[in-house]
Amino acid sequence: MEFDLIDAIRARVNIARDDVALGIGDDAALTDLAPGRQLVACTDTLVAGVHFPDGTAPEDVGWKSLAVNLSDLAAMGATPAWALLALTVPDADARFIESFAAGFAALARAHDVALIGGDTTQGPLSITVTALGTVPAGEALTRAGARVGDAVFVTGTLGDAAGALRVSLPPHAGKGAGDGWEPLLGRLNRPEPRVAAGLALRGIANACIDVSDGLLADLGHTCVASGVRAEVDVDALPLSSSLTATFDTATCSELALAGGDDYELCFTVADAREAEMQAALARQGCEATRIGRIVAGSGVCVLDARGDEVAAPRSGWEHFSQ
Amino acid sequence: MEFDLIDAIRARVNIARDDVALGIGDDAALTDLAPGRQLVACTDTLVAGVHFPDGTAPEDVGWKSLAVNLSDLAAMGATPAWALLALTVPDADARFIESFAAGFAALARAHDVALIGGDTTQGPLSITVTALGTVPAGEALTRAGARVGDAVFVTGTLGDAAGALRVSLPPHAGKGAGDGWEPLLGRLNRPEPRVAAGLALRGIANACIDVSDGLLADLGHTCVASGVRAEVDVDALPLSSSLTATFDTATCSELALAGGDDYELCFTVADAREAEMQAALARQGCEATRIGRIVAGSGVCVLDARGDEVAAPRSGWEHFSQ
Repeated sequence: MEFDLIDAIRARVNIARDDVALGIGDDAALTDLAPGRQLVACTDTLVAGVHFPDGTAPEDVGWKSLAVNLSDLAAMGATPAWALLALTVPDADARFIESFAAGFAALARAHDVALIGGDTTQGPLSITVTALGTVPAGEALTRAGARVGDAVFVTGTLGDAAGALRVSLPPHAGKGAGDGWEPLLGRLNRPEPRVAAGLALRGIANACIDVSDGLLADLGHTCVASGVRAEVDVDALPLSSSLTATFDTATCSELALAGGDDYELCFTVADAREAEMQAALARQGCEATRIGRIVAGSGVCVLDARGDEVAAPRSGWEHFSQ
Repeated sequence: MEFDLIDAIRARVNIARDDVALGIGDDAALTDLAPGRQLVACTDTLVAGVHFPDGTAPEDVGWKSLAVNLSDLAAMGATPAWALLALTVPDADARFIESFAAGFAALARAHDVALIGGDTTQGPLSITVTALGTVPAGEALTRAGARVGDAVFVTGTLGDAAGALRVSLPPHAGKGAGDGWEPLLGRLNRPEPRVAAGLALRGIANACIDVSDGLLADLGHTCVASGVRAEVDVDALPLSSSLTATFDTATCSELALAGGDDYELCFTVADAREAEMQAALARQGCEATRIGRIVAGSGVCVLDARGDEVAAPRSGWEHFSQ
C-alpha cells in the first residue's frame, strides 16, 4: 500500500523548498546543504497506546509526530528543513490518513519543512519521523556546554501535558475536571516546538535540551553531558494558570518536575547574559523563567524556598497509561 | 527505556567517521557534507509478521533493516554515510537487542555507515531505519532517465527471497524442501545491498531502481517516471541454480517477475554502452543480465522466446504470509 498512502500524504503536505533537488517518488530524496552549514538529524517514534492514548485525534497524532522531532532540532538551535515519515497503520483508512496528513502538514507548513521521503506499512499504529535541519557549522547548541555559575532557564510552562493525562485518564479520570483544565489538553496533543527560541539562543546559551522526558530527567542529561550539577528551585517552576487551577501545589510541582511531554527548552546561560537572552527570546514572543543554577558536582537536586533539598518525584517521563 | 537500549546498540555499532561532528547522545546529531555533494535520504520500516516472519533471527532482522535502506541508496548511486534507527520492541530483552545490534553492525561496518541517532520505544516489534548518503551534485541515478532504445538490465538473480518464503511457509511449507534450496534463505534474511554496483553505474546507467516490490512493479515505477514502456524477456530472467533446482520453470518465472525482496538493481543503459557498463560492474565483482528493452508507450509487458506477450503474474511484492 506504500504508494497510495504516501501519495495521499504528499498531496496534503506540499511544501516546496528550493533546496530539494528530488523529493518523494524515487528510491531516495536529494537535497542541497548550503555551504558552511552542518546537517542536524534526529528521529523519534510515537506508538499508539504508549506515546499517545488510543483514540487521540489523527490530526493531533500527525502534528505531534513532527512536533516532537522539531523540538529536538530546536534544542540544537537548528533550522528545520526536511522530514521523512514512516507510518505504520492497521489498515488503509483514507479518513485517518487524510486527517493525519492534515495535522502533519499544518506544522510542517508553519516551519517550512518539506516531506522528502516516506514509507507506509501495515501493522499496529506507529509513526517514526526523521527530521533534518541545518545549522551554521560549529554553532549548534548541545547538552555539553553548561558551566558552573550558569543560570538554568526553561521556556514557557511545565507540567501541562502531564496534567492533561492526569486529569483525563484512569485512575485519575474526572479528577479536577471542570472549567480551566481543558487548555492542558492542547499542550498534550499539539505541542509547539520552540524552534524560534532555539535559533535565538544560539550564541547565547551554553547548553540546551528539550524537555520531553521530564525536567529532572532532561536536565539530568545536561548535567551528565556537561559534568556539572544543577539545583532547581521548586518555587520558581513556571506553571500555567490552567495547571494551578486544577491541581494542588504539590501535584503541580510533581508534574512540572517529572511529567514530561512538555517540549519546552531547558538551557543554561552565563549570569551576565540573562538580559541579552531575555531580549532575544522576547523578540520571538517567547518567555523564559530562571529555575535554578549550575554548580559543581553531579546530578540534579530540588530546593525549597529556604534552600533545603526536598525529595524529588520519580524522575522521567510519566507514562500516560499509569 | 530509550537510553539503555540505544547505548547498548551504540556500543555494538561503533563506526567512527570524520564527518560526524556529534553522534548519538544529544537531541540530534551533527554531520558535515563535503562541498559539491548532495544529501541522499530514504527511510523504510520493517514490521514483524509483515516484512519478515515472526521468529526470524534478531541478527537477520538487524541486518535486513539496514540493508533495505542501503539498497535504496545504491539505486541512487549514492555512497552510504549515516543511519538513524528507530526500534520498537515489546520488551527490553537484552539478548534480542544484542543480536539485533550485531546484525545491524555487521552490515554498517561493511559500508562504513555511522549510527548517528536513534529512538527505542516499547510496542509491537517494528524497525524504521533512515539511511543518509551522499552523491556528487547532479550525478544521482533516478527512475526518470530511461530512454526508448535503452536495454534493461538487472544485477544478480531474481526470485530467490520469494522462493525462500514459498518453500518455508504455509500453504507451501515443505514443498520442494531438500538439498539445494537453503541458499535461498540467505537471500531472504541477509540481502546484500548493491552499493558498489550503484556507484559503478553512475554516469553510465540512464535510470535505476532497486527491486524490492518485485521486478514488474519496480520496473513499472521506472516506466511511469520516465514516460516509457518496458518489454521483459521471460527467458532471459537470471535465476539462481538454487531456485531452478527447487521450482518448476513457470514458478521460477513468477517468483522472478513478481516475488520481491530481491534488492538487486534494475537499470537501463544505452545499447552502445553495454560493454563499458559490464566492465565497470565486473570491477566490483558484480554481474548484470540483459532482460529486455525500453520502447515507446507505457507499462511493462513480458514476452516469450517468440516475442509473444505472455500473461504476467500479479505484480507487486509477494507478502510472505500469503
